[in-house]
Amino acid sequence: MSDPAAVELGTGEQETGGPRRGRGDRAGGGAAARRAARSGGGPGQQLTYIRREIPLYEVLNEEGLALIEKNADTVLEEVGIIFRDDPETLALWKDAGADVRGDRVHFPKGLPRSLLKTAPSVYTQHARNPERSVQIGGNATVFAPVYGPPFVRDLDGNRRYATIEDFRNFVKLAYMAPSIHHSGGTVCEPVDVPVNKRHLDMIYSHIKYSDKPFMGSVTAPERAEDTVAMAKLVFGDDFVENNTVLTSLINANSPMVFDDTMLGALKVYARHNQACIVTPFILAGAMSPVTVAGTLTQVLAEVLAGASVTQLVRPGAPVLFGTFASSISMQSGAPTFGTPEPSLVSYGAAQLARRLGLPFRTGGSLCASKIPDAQAAYESANTLNSTILAGTNFVLHAAGWLEGGLASCYEKFMMDIDQLGMQQKFAQGVDLSENGQAMDAIRQVGPGSHYLGCDHTQANFQTAFYRSSIADNNSFEQWEAEGSKPAHQRANELARRWLETYEAPALDQGIDEALLAFIRQKKESMPDAFT
Amino acid sequence: MSDPAAVELGTGEQETGGPRRGRGDRAGGGAAARRAARSGGGPGQQLTYIRREIPLYEVLNEEGLALIEKNADTVLEEVGIIFRDDPETLALWKDAGADVRGDRVHFPKGLPRSLLKTAPSVYTQHARNPERSVQIGGNATVFAPVYGPPFVRDLDGNRRYATIEDFRNFVKLAYMAPSIHHSGGTVCEPVDVPVNKRHLDMIYSHIKYSDKPFMGSVTAPERAEDTVAMAKLVFGDDFVENNTVLTSLINANSPMVFDDTMLGALKVYARHNQACIVTPFILAGAMSPVTVAGTLTQVLAEVLAGASVTQLVRPGAPVLFGTFASSISMQSGAPTFGTPEPSLVSYGAAQLARRLGLPFRTGGSLCASKIPDAQAAYESANTLNSTILAGTNFVLHAAGWLEGGLASCYEKFMMDIDQLGMQQKFAQGVDLSENGQAMDAIRQVGPGSHYLGCDHTQANFQTAFYRSSIADNNSFEQWEAEGSKPAHQRANELARRWLETYEAPALDQGIDEALLAFIRQKKESMPDAFT
Repeated sequence: MSDPAAVELGTGEQETGGPRRGRGDRAGGGAAARRAARSGGGPGQQLTYIRREIPLYEVLNEEGLALIEKNADTVLEEVGIIFRDDPETLALWKDAGADVRGDRVHFPKGLPRSLLKTAPSVYTQHARNPERSVQIGGNATVFAPVYGPPFVRDLDGNRRYATIEDFRNFVKLAYMAPSIHHSGGTVCEPVDVPVNKRHLDMIYSHIKYSDKPFMGSVTAPERAEDTVAMAKLVFGDDFVENNTVLTSLINANSPMVFDDTMLGALKVYARHNQACIVTPFILAGAMSPVTVAGTLTQVLAEVLAGASVTQLVRPGAPVLFGTFASSISMQSGAPTFGTPEPSLVSYGAAQLARRLGLPFRTGGSLCASKIPDAQAAYESANTLNSTILAGTNFVLHAAGWLEGGLASCYEKFMMDIDQLGMQQKFAQGVDLSENGQAMDAIRQVGPGSHYLGCDHTQANFQTAFYRSSIADNNSFEQWEAEGSKPAHQRANELARRWLETYEAPALDQGIDEALLAFIRQKKESMPDAFT
Repeated sequence: MSDPAAVELGTGEQETGGPRRGRGDRAGGGAAARRAARSGGGPGQQLTYIRREIPLYEVLNEEGLALIEKNADTVLEEVGIIFRDDPETLALWKDAGADVRGDRVHFPKGLPRSLLKTAPSVYTQHARNPERSVQIGGNATVFAPVYGPPFVRDLDGNRRYATIEDFRNFVKLAYMAPSIHHSGGTVCEPVDVPVNKRHLDMIYSHIKYSDKPFMGSVTAPERAEDTVAMAKLVFGDDFVENNTVLTSLINANSPMVFDDTMLGALKVYARHNQACIVTPFILAGAMSPVTVAGTLTQVLAEVLAGASVTQLVRPGAPVLFGTFASSISMQSGAPTFGTPEPSLVSYGAAQLARRLGLPFRTGGSLCASKIPDAQAAYESANTLNSTILAGTNFVLHAAGWLEGGLASCYEKFMMDIDQLGMQQKFAQGVDLSENGQAMDAIRQVGPGSHYLGCDHTQANFQTAFYRSSIADNNSFEQWEAEGSKPAHQRANELARRWLETYEAPALDQGIDEALLAFIRQKKESMPDAFT
């Protein structure tokens, strides 16, 4: 608490100053957190992760949940799930007692569910900075940035292919954002790096430019192995084998198919005790039925089948129940976001995950808009609100997602992290302490006066209300005098200031050199080594 | 069901065609509703009101609620409430057994709560078109437009003082909007009409240009009387005295003051069996403590004191528990919206209202932004989501609110009603019927295929997913080819098309003439008759 300046996060004047590994401030993120806690404003204080102190919102009752579970069991038994081009997994299923016909597996009732009993309901994903290690599951919620877009909408208003420079920028912004707890994975696709080498540069960027936990490559089993190898250089071999330092994204090919690429990566990670998020990627109406209950049934069946493979490989390996819920426009076939049906799917899936005892992933700040306009914001806020109230444990795409996931947007990233800060505050719930009750204030002020200067307000005003880093709450006249800026323009200026003031967290020089040597050796062994 | 064309609402091609009084289609809004139900898209179907089939979200447990109730009782007893310049109300309180000292009333524990036992928990507000009559309370939610702004942001991008022409336009748009159930009150302040005559033109506009229920004038007791008189011309004397045809907004002067203007209007309406929404208008930090629990305590105390006056005047008169929750920026003092603290206040206040057995009003599509940009949308969506999940019965400011309530915005109105349509759909919850379960679809499609053409999708695609009237879900390329329009521009075009195609609902010529004669006579009796 010796920092003299109570600088405000989110004004561009803050010194985020990445906390060093091993500093040992378990309260949540070191110096930046302490400063943020004192300033009480900006985009919220840096939390290691959210510990929800608010109730869950649940849309299904016991009867509805039991019905969907029964239906999912029927789907698993009668319809079955295809494990494509993966004899190893098919053999695992045969040994486990499933009915394997070609590449299609039919499951005796309750088999996947019983296999998943060895999967933890809560685990810790360690970060290279122990202050940043996150709990995944239980009452914890972890925010991670957008994942996957090949395009960016940059700070000059251009939409163009993403580069490794963009990738680094998003890692830096996520590192600096007090409401982001996880560095994520493919924050954008660095298409200027060849596909077979891309993962090396991405993993390195997460380690070098952030000290928050991150995700591994899943585009091929050998890239998953590279990720584990790089993690071992950072954390040590034994630590990695006995702990979880990676949480990676495994999508089903809905409906009811898992392919060898995703299964290959899943098995690598499970074998090394690393976590997988098994996610049916659903555009309802195309990959699942047009109804919420039908979609939930298929999602549950797919997760049961896919997630339990991790337990066949290594009982006890962490695995998440993932859901990516969107609907398609029945006119154009285009995916839509922020609409009622995906929210209902998210709420229901969260309930099914809790009954299964698995941590849950869904939602984020999803939208179909091409620009960070009102459509983007309505859709993102609708998605994020249901994500939080559902009790989601791991929130991918929490910031920066635009255009149905085709573009990572700098401006939207800055706007979204402000919203995430609000959710962090909301998740603290209602303070019912004596100070929270504020009876002294009511007695002191009395009828017809105001609370602006009263003792209680003075004592609490720094932390009382969430302070947005984006919203303009000034008068029309003042807003006009300051240039009549829309929100995305303020976000643009903030992103520029953050990138200008970014400072990398310390990284042990030996580790850095070992990583670079590993990457160099790997790249040299590959064809088309143009980087 | 003889309408040949299943036109799509929200595309500007629809024929809304206001249903006539007495047509007797109780299912929800007549021809427009039937067309909307068939089209399954646009901004949702016209519902008379929402019947929520989803659970409530509650942030306080029994202990927290009891604590706040106890504290509110303490405030009422020890601190008291001022009823300013209103000897009649003070006398009512004295007769009821309260401790009246000057203009301040101290309440014996439990007195206001026991008085409110005669207030109904659910009532019907009748519309001149019986198909439009709404239930207020219970599992019903009613959306009404923005209330109060002196400015508009018009379709040419100007911010200027509102006129009676703007007023009529917002009434027309609300009439056409399938997700608006109530015509509201002061949809904007027609400042081109003298203050003393304004209410006459406003009430007439609601009756003439819409057939949805509406709100009465509250700016003076005699204007409330004029409202009741005009309602009697429409509904008949006896009907008005024995039913409720007006729901009007009575704000407290927080903290802990009611003035004679608002009390005067309240007593007029209560005496005529008309409903009042007693609303502490709270910018927390100024008009209430900076904490959620402290604000809830004061809100409850104020509502108890103000709402129970209606029962002193006429036991059984409908009255709502109102809350307007905002926080102020502790830096500038400006009101802020869409932040976590007001959401918590709304959730908590809804719980307190249910325990009191009163219908509840809060929220809407609130924002501080000066333009319909991302800030406006994030803030509005945050507010609206908590409004719905709280189980709010009457939602004022549901569409068109901008700039902290200083401006009614056409574009925002169109964007908001699209969001309201989504909430209507969400509130239907999860369909667990056999069709909802969609097991036939899953069996028919099987692994590795798609659902686009399957029987179940074909049978359900019209109504499966909410279809936005504003969102652009097309590809980037198509969006660019169509002019790279932001959401507010699409909203602008939609508002213009709606206003061009508006058709007034039928109004009995005798009633119309009687209303105009009443207004003429009233205006002639007033000074400054410049209109």
